[in-house]
Amino acid sequence: MDKERFSKQLQFLIEIDKMKTILRQNVLIDQSKQENDAEHSWHFAVMALILSEYADSKEVNINRVLKMALLHDLVEIYAGDTFAFDEKANEDKLLRETEAADKLFGLLPLDQGTEYRLLWEEFDAMETPDAIYAAAIDRFQPFILNYMTQGHTWKLGNVTSAKVYKRLEMVKYAMPKLWETIEFMVQDSIEKGYLAK
Amino acid sequence: MDKERFSKQLQFLIEIDKMKTILRQNVLIDQSKQENDAEHSWHFAVMALILSEYADSKEVNINRVLKMALLHDLVEIYAGDTFAFDEKANEDKLLRETEAADKLFGLLPLDQGTEYRLLWEEFDAMETPDAIYAAAIDRFQPFILNYMTQGHTWKLGNVTSAKVYKRLEMVKYAMPKLWETIEFMVQDSIEKGYLAK
Repeated sequence: MDKERFSKQLQFLIEIDKMKTILRQNVLIDQSKQENDAEHSWHFAVMALILSEYADSKEVNINRVLKMALLHDLVEIYAGDTFAFDEKANEDKLLRETEAADKLFGLLPLDQGTEYRLLWEEFDAMETPDAIYAAAIDRFQPFILNYMTQGHTWKLGNVTSAKVYKRLEMVKYAMPKLWETIEFMVQDSIEKGYLAK
Repeated sequence: MDKERFSKQLQFLIEIDKMKTILRQNVLIDQSKQENDAEHSWHFAVMALILSEYADSKEVNINRVLKMALLHDLVEIYAGDTFAFDEKANEDKLLRETEAADKLFGLLPLDQGTEYRLLWEEFDAMETPDAIYAAAIDRFQPFILNYMTQGHTWKLGNVTSAKVYKRLEMVKYAMPKLWETIEFMVQDSIEKGYLAK
């Protein structure tokens, strides 16, 4: 039993409690409060699990995707949440998040820190089948929350349907079977005034 | 593409957003607010991942444990959170949670509803290696939060160290290598007045 190793793991597990206080732009479906990163990560993971049959690539390993979902936003503890539709804030997102990853994954024992940092980098690069499916769910989850709250965050950011379509390209690519239904929801959002044309 | 199937999955994924509003007795480590079930489930999953090397049974399948972590508290959407140290509330917990499981897992297509209900039942029975390890982490996660908040919930419920030791029996059994350190934390909690002797 390596006490120093366990101590590092415990410090990491204590530090990540802060995910419960990192607020996102979304509100919950009941509109009672803003969603935080821990809640989003959990919802993302369950969505990835339930919808895995629609992943177009047969190479998707849902177990790796679940780990990506659980860990993908940890860097936001130090880098903060970057609103997907805020172009300016997205300019220095990479630098901020890389520094945050050094700090956060550096809390863990070297082997685990390296393993999970690589998984986060893979997620962030959106190139492998697992990362592409994960990125699609990461976009679809807030889309559902926005659709169910009459476009709460879209209205807040004056988001146009063109921007939403661009954001959903990854969903269309990763889960083409769902596209007809999702596209209906976007059109419905425009018609109902949730989303600017 | 079976639209009725996707519609059921979507209804389930929308319904479980309520997990973000089911409050637990614990507060966050920064004591800013009570923890909710979605946050707890996420933290439980990450803890299970990071600490899996300490699972005493070599048969533990971390991928199944992660799914248990994500889904284990869903029944609380209808059954509510039952405080672990409230003996009266625990008397009818099983009945309340069984009815909730019928309703909640019944939202999903039959194959998925059955699969995940069985996984929840396995978790709840605490008999298989996966369920034993999961139950240990489910107890260890709030223990850490209590330890880091000077015994917030223990004080609230007038919890004695004997009750905490009983609650941690599963942790000792599932992760014996960690016991010396955890027992130190319990003793430290008593000495510092976080926990009544």
